[in-house]
Amino acid sequence: MYVSTEIVIFTIREARLQVVLRRRRRDPLKGGGTWALPGGAVGVDEDVDLAATRTLTQQTGLKDVYLEQLYTFGCPDRHPERRLITVAYYALAPVERTVDAQRHKDELVWFPCGALPELYLDHGAIIDVARGRLKAKLDYSTIAFQFMPKRFTLSELQHVYETILGETLDKRNFRKRVLSIGTLEQTGNMRRDGCHRPARLYRLKTPGKVQFIK
Amino acid sequence: MYVSTEIVIFTIREARLQVVLRRRRRDPLKGGGTWALPGGAVGVDEDVDLAATRTLTQQTGLKDVYLEQLYTFGCPDRHPERRLITVAYYALAPVERTVDAQRHKDELVWFPCGALPELYLDHGAIIDVARGRLKAKLDYSTIAFQFMPKRFTLSELQHVYETILGETLDKRNFRKRVLSIGTLEQTGNMRRDGCHRPARLYRLKTPGKVQFIK
Repeated sequence: MYVSTEIVIFTIREARLQVVLRRRRRDPLKGGGTWALPGGAVGVDEDVDLAATRTLTQQTGLKDVYLEQLYTFGCPDRHPERRLITVAYYALAPVERTVDAQRHKDELVWFPCGALPELYLDHGAIIDVARGRLKAKLDYSTIAFQFMPKRFTLSELQHVYETILGETLDKRNFRKRVLSIGTLEQTGNMRRDGCHRPARLYRLKTPGKVQFIK
Repeated sequence: MYVSTEIVIFTIREARLQVVLRRRRRDPLKGGGTWALPGGAVGVDEDVDLAATRTLTQQTGLKDVYLEQLYTFGCPDRHPERRLITVAYYALAPVERTVDAQRHKDELVWFPCGALPELYLDHGAIIDVARGRLKAKLDYSTIAFQFMPKRFTLSELQHVYETILGETLDKRNFRKRVLSIGTLEQTGNMRRDGCHRPARLYRLKTPGKVQFIK
């Protein structure tokens, strides 16, 4: 059996949830679409989780971003020619980091989740499962904080939540809830832009750590 | 590469969280222990999720119990002789159903999670991951309800939570929280036993459905 890892890499760009896809060079029409998730074969002596980390870095240049195993897809007819089992992962990257990803290889293109091109094999279904997991985790963890730059305002954080959920949240309740978790701290600085009141800048106390919340 | 599924089947028996293990007949000392999780090879043309369902039923007689993919374990040295990737699952069974499981095969034995025998390969680590997932999910889902028989009292439900968490919960808060989820309904009957006040019996509105809660 062939085993691969494929990675759904999310970011928030231009106020939309986006994923990065790679253009397939070989037989681009075979398997149902020109665009595929970053991914590839697991080496014979390679740990599956490490294969995902390696693939992420080799194909997109992204390092030290949130990466989690999503689901293993093992339907026997998902590949037209071979028995392929895919251990899928998902990663979250702040938009600043994705600039590097795009510089890394010009075959990589970001697509809004609502406007995906025709995808290779069942990669569309894998993206759907990843979106579902991300949305569910918003409710009981601080996972969305992984999209934030080093310093951000609470309005910017709320905007990320609203973008993923596709709904507007009450400002006062949102602030109360995220501050009560205790993972944010004030930087002591303010963001000042022309027409708004200056807004406090926050940062994560332990960047990279995702916490369960009740 | 070889791909297998292994299943951590939990129940609450004798006021303890227990898992069922099978006695290995071939080379019982090879691979680190006589006892293994129910599991086996995924067929060449078999869907991985269906392989887990098949294995569960064939090896334990359990059907229609809660079953969820847990994690894929893909460390290259987890098996001494071959490259083995294991898609692990976990299942929850009410104790009544496990009687059938035990009748099904006499090589199956229930062990309390706190007193496991020496285990085959990394099956001990797989059980640890499954316990962690179960405990985490208690906080944000109705997963523990899957341990309950058709009709149960709120005290019995609370006892299941306390057993898994290893801590005592406040009775009033617990009742308020589980009733507010809206997945329980009164059966209209009471449980009467000698020395206690009669207690209302509840059932799940949609058995088998696990709901996220906030």
